[in-house]
Amino acid sequence: MRMADLIAKKKDGLELTKEELNFIIQGYVQGRIPDYQISALAMAICFQGMTAEETADLTMAMVNSGEQVEITIPGKIVVDKHSSGGVGDKTTLIVGPLVAACGVPVAKMSGRGLGHTGGTIDKLQSIPGLNVEMSEQAFRAQVKEIGLAIVAQSDSLVPADKKLYSLRDVTATVDSIPLIASSIMSKKIASGAQAIVLDVKYGSGAFMATEQQARELAQAMVDIGKNVGRDTVAIISDMGQPLGRAVGNSLEVLEAMECLQGKGPQDLMEVCLELASWMLVLGKITDTTQRARVILEDVLKQGKAWDKFLEFVSAQGGDIVKLKNKELPLSPLKIQFQAPAQGYIQNIDARKVGTSAMILGAGRENKESTIDYGAGIYFLKKTGQQVEKGEPLMELYTSDVQKVQPALNLLSQALTISDSYEPEEPKVSAVVC
Amino acid sequence: MRMADLIAKKKDGLELTKEELNFIIQGYVQGRIPDYQISALAMAICFQGMTAEETADLTMAMVNSGEQVEITIPGKIVVDKHSSGGVGDKTTLIVGPLVAACGVPVAKMSGRGLGHTGGTIDKLQSIPGLNVEMSEQAFRAQVKEIGLAIVAQSDSLVPADKKLYSLRDVTATVDSIPLIASSIMSKKIASGAQAIVLDVKYGSGAFMATEQQARELAQAMVDIGKNVGRDTVAIISDMGQPLGRAVGNSLEVLEAMECLQGKGPQDLMEVCLELASWMLVLGKITDTTQRARVILEDVLKQGKAWDKFLEFVSAQGGDIVKLKNKELPLSPLKIQFQAPAQGYIQNIDARKVGTSAMILGAGRENKESTIDYGAGIYFLKKTGQQVEKGEPLMELYTSDVQKVQPALNLLSQALTISDSYEPEEPKVSAVVC
Repeated sequence: MRMADLIAKKKDGLELTKEELNFIIQGYVQGRIPDYQISALAMAICFQGMTAEETADLTMAMVNSGEQVEITIPGKIVVDKHSSGGVGDKTTLIVGPLVAACGVPVAKMSGRGLGHTGGTIDKLQSIPGLNVEMSEQAFRAQVKEIGLAIVAQSDSLVPADKKLYSLRDVTATVDSIPLIASSIMSKKIASGAQAIVLDVKYGSGAFMATEQQARELAQAMVDIGKNVGRDTVAIISDMGQPLGRAVGNSLEVLEAMECLQGKGPQDLMEVCLELASWMLVLGKITDTTQRARVILEDVLKQGKAWDKFLEFVSAQGGDIVKLKNKELPLSPLKIQFQAPAQGYIQNIDARKVGTSAMILGAGRENKESTIDYGAGIYFLKKTGQQVEKGEPLMELYTSDVQKVQPALNLLSQALTISDSYEPEEPKVSAVVC
Repeated sequence: MRMADLIAKKKDGLELTKEELNFIIQGYVQGRIPDYQISALAMAICFQGMTAEETADLTMAMVNSGEQVEITIPGKIVVDKHSSGGVGDKTTLIVGPLVAACGVPVAKMSGRGLGHTGGTIDKLQSIPGLNVEMSEQAFRAQVKEIGLAIVAQSDSLVPADKKLYSLRDVTATVDSIPLIASSIMSKKIASGAQAIVLDVKYGSGAFMATEQQARELAQAMVDIGKNVGRDTVAIISDMGQPLGRAVGNSLEVLEAMECLQGKGPQDLMEVCLELASWMLVLGKITDTTQRARVILEDVLKQGKAWDKFLEFVSAQGGDIVKLKNKELPLSPLKIQFQAPAQGYIQNIDARKVGTSAMILGAGRENKESTIDYGAGIYFLKKTGQQVEKGEPLMELYTSDVQKVQPALNLLSQALTISDSYEPEEPKVSAVVC
């Protein structure tokens, strides 16, 4: 097998075989196939695409490039959940304990944030003492014992993805549905998920700009799941404006706590309940999402989700006394953003909000940036609400006074206020399964 | 300027500017831009193409990556000629002296052969003593003095092309018209050509499979010439069967000598006269190719082309006594290939013949291979001729008895003999200018 011939094959629009994809991924990880051949192949894939079978074979070739976590719990199905990035997306912090409290074990390896999007691991690390690095053995043990563990993704899983993603990032080959789908799914499969619920977002704050693209990505991932024998469902949700009211690590944990106590904002709770209900269905706790909703509402009402959250935080070394007292780091400078005009909030651009939060210190401009866990933005008003001129709309938190003006400037661009308001479409627009 | 953004721009089908192309080529040659970004860009170019202006800008960026030869001869236009490779293509050896004898200076830097195609430099080196390495100063001086010099391409010209071609070769990005066109034209322009006549071949032995592809490549190169101010004309010629009767270095020089003495085979002479007549027109010796033909026939008849060839060989240190006596190396084993059936020769596959000649020792399997100048194939019969079973069709020359059988096997596949013969289309099918 010659790599140049395989590149030519894909360039000509033909399908690569399982053996060929294994040869490519193994050769790349082991250093026999150089970056310059992989980047040419990736570009050819951007133009020619991949069939569902090919994408599944690529995914498994990537999974096989590293270690794999296996978690077997008799009578239970270990379910994972993945959101394709976003602004203010703290759903994992809510859905994880909620689902685990219903008896579905959740084993989640998560990433850190980059650019305008936040990462679950960063959010968790704003809880004093909480440990996100864990041996595979400890990870498995915790899932078995309390039904929930959320840790940082181990470097030993899917090394092909890490190498490939870095290369795609600098060769303009990121935006390929099969490459994105196989990247996400390989990590889910390698980290031990037996069933997977995906939240594919679209809109300014998301990776996919349009609902149509989000559907295509969702379909590709669901197809991979089918092809490799993992039950997979995807919901399509809008990330045109930030999810919930909080953007920033401590702020989002505080908001997640409110949700777990039944006091969360409606848009955020809707996405969480939709995700959680599918996780209950895939976990075979019940057979319809309608019935799942009833169970979930009940578990929330009884405080079991909140209890599970505390159990989880405690198991991973987090300080639950401080947590209960809401003693999370908050940045010392608090600035109000006031409405520049009266009217209705027509739109809040999620990407601009995410970037503003990053500027304030809540996110990473590059992989080397450090995070200010207490920085961020809290929305007092959201889309559709009527505001008076000068009325406070947001609270900004930062430790660096020099970041205030740039963030305010960008936030004022993020905001559209108009005379009337047309209600937006529902947050969750479709389900692919 | 970020290289990843430029790759994305081309991927999206947009036009790169002159500044951007200079940034790319300079960065690549100077090692700032890595192979993996260039290969991704090359693949995007394979899919999206380039406009004529873009291709011209790329060509000049490549020219500017190295040294450039300048040859100024008052009152004269220095003309170059390029064939896009082929089997049995010794046109340079004939056209060069012929055109120089008419008063058009020819300054040619040529390549070596690889795979099934031969190279002018290898052919010349079968002449005892002939030197193909020359300083730029000596090259210029010889063109000024005798009107003709043919040397090996200097490494200091167009370093970008060498680097880019090696990369394209292993990333399945060779077959892009703008990349091929800019590669060829950059070398012509850098080596001092003021006007250029191209011979773009199609068919099994050529780089371009179909006449249509050859036309596209020809058009792209003529457009480059126009855009950068070098008069350029291309002829499209058939390379379905080998050109002339000889394939192999010494054998081709001997055939070229016959052509220069007015005794060449018709198919070969037709291509040579067409090329030469355009070179006379671009060299402003006359204004139509019809008039040029008259001049060329006269010069041939008077033996001036032959005299110019001897003058050229002598100037480059070749032994003209041995040359005149046809004392060129010929390999010791001479084998006849006999017709396997009676009928008409319907086709002789040029690529298979070229590969057979390579097997016999006349060509290079890879860049490190050494050449047996005396090896090759001489056709006693060609397409359209009637043959009896057992009648000799070819003579094979080699120094290695083990190569005989593999070459004979491949040659028998190259040959199609049928009951009747449909005449082929003319050798030169079009002119692009």
